[in-house]
Amino acid sequence: MRQSLPPVVLVLAGHDPTGGAGLVADSEAIAACGGWAATIPTALTVQNCHNVTRIVPVDPNGMRQMAEALSDMQIAAIKLGLLADEPTLRAAEQIIRRFPGVPVVADPVLKAGGGAELSTAVLHKLYVDRLLPLVDILTPNRFELAALTPDIAAPYDDTARAVALLSQGCQAILVTATDDPVPGNEQQVVHTLHSPDTTRQWQWPRLPELFHGSGCTLASAIAARLAVGERLPIACEQAQHFTWECLSQGYQPPSGQCLPNRLPRTVRF
Amino acid sequence: MRQSLPPVVLVLAGHDPTGGAGLVADSEAIAACGGWAATIPTALTVQNCHNVTRIVPVDPNGMRQMAEALSDMQIAAIKLGLLADEPTLRAAEQIIRRFPGVPVVADPVLKAGGGAELSTAVLHKLYVDRLLPLVDILTPNRFELAALTPDIAAPYDDTARAVALLSQGCQAILVTATDDPVPGNEQQVVHTLHSPDTTRQWQWPRLPELFHGSGCTLASAIAARLAVGERLPIACEQAQHFTWECLSQGYQPPSGQCLPNRLPRTVRF
Repeated sequence: MRQSLPPVVLVLAGHDPTGGAGLVADSEAIAACGGWAATIPTALTVQNCHNVTRIVPVDPNGMRQMAEALSDMQIAAIKLGLLADEPTLRAAEQIIRRFPGVPVVADPVLKAGGGAELSTAVLHKLYVDRLLPLVDILTPNRFELAALTPDIAAPYDDTARAVALLSQGCQAILVTATDDPVPGNEQQVVHTLHSPDTTRQWQWPRLPELFHGSGCTLASAIAARLAVGERLPIACEQAQHFTWECLSQGYQPPSGQCLPNRLPRTVRF
Repeated sequence: MRQSLPPVVLVLAGHDPTGGAGLVADSEAIAACGGWAATIPTALTVQNCHNVTRIVPVDPNGMRQMAEALSDMQIAAIKLGLLADEPTLRAAEQIIRRFPGVPVVADPVLKAGGGAELSTAVLHKLYVDRLLPLVDILTPNRFELAALTPDIAAPYDDTARAVALLSQGCQAILVTATDDPVPGNEQQVVHTLHSPDTTRQWQWPRLPELFHGSGCTLASAIAARLAVGERLPIACEQAQHFTWECLSQGYQPPSGQCLPNRLPRTVRF
């Protein structure tokens, strides 16, 4: 008697040829955290471990057809990554609406680790208006949190920004502060979960290197843990633990940012 | 001191949303076998665990740009999968030529597991003429072997067909007989390695189910084992062992072909 497929996480994300980030990274993180990834590419990219140099959004009709073809897999969670233009963002919205009640984890990928802008102010607004009401947990870093709340001026009031996004219909927000340390606490990375009824913080020892794909890893791990049935705060904690382990055991490529080590390279011969 | 990146396998392959086959499957197999996959998509597809319903080749200029951007990763092996039209096949040829001396494993994906044709007779000829001289090991099943040698009529003379392809410049051929059992030996799957100086066979207990992605798994595992420095016959044996384990522990999705289980789902919390 064959074992049934692990809980399926539907991933809508960009493709990164390096394997550090994007849908390949998502698939690795989801597998390592007990799920099975079904992936719909939203954009192809040209990049290396330094920066992104080109983004080509995928045909939104193709995205919809892929989702239609996957309808015989039972989707247990959805993970959203890069959405680089309006047609693919709208296709993502339509695809999410095919799966009512399925938890949605959204990582608002707005800028590459190397600094390249991957989005626009118009797209940020569309993201907030169209997608946020469908999102169970958003995982912005502090730069992305600020970009999604341009009407709030205070530079460090993350709570006010999170409350503003929660009021748009998003159920919870995990703000990561890897990119931008909270003043006075530079040795730790502080991640804060905001939801209507609670705020919770975790601290992790800051690693000295820059990494390529840490945000994808975290969001996909949360989606996988929700897919297997964990409750949100536990899923967030497990995913942070997993991500920190991947980074602390990460690899140094010949040049550029370090790459997460999401899979035990245990050869089964 | 960070560990350096595992040997990198450059994958040129199609994307399969189910994760059973294509570049996500390749990445999993390569990681499990001790490598790191860098992936260049050659085509996007619409498919499920029953069949492929649409193939959209990727812009060949984009493929070349991706390869250029990856030039700072040290490529230790190349794995070729689906090449669905002439422009992407020619782009693949140009990309392989950027990496002289790097072993090339080519899986000639000509038909989907569900029966959909993924190639044409014109493309088969181009594959033989342009790519085969660059290939270290070709991994056709018996259907693909026959399609690549249309001038040979005898239905079961695999050796004559393999010799014909070896004479085109390919260094070795591993013919898999999962798809088409050798008469009189239906309970075993027989894989045969043909090279100019030797012929070697392996037998594996035939599993009752059909699988989605077994060919991708095998070819990627060979590429990973070559990348870490194994010699060809050993790499072929290890990859067959790995693939058989993945299939025997594979998953039954809600409908359609079974999916290989390439990764231990060991959550590291």
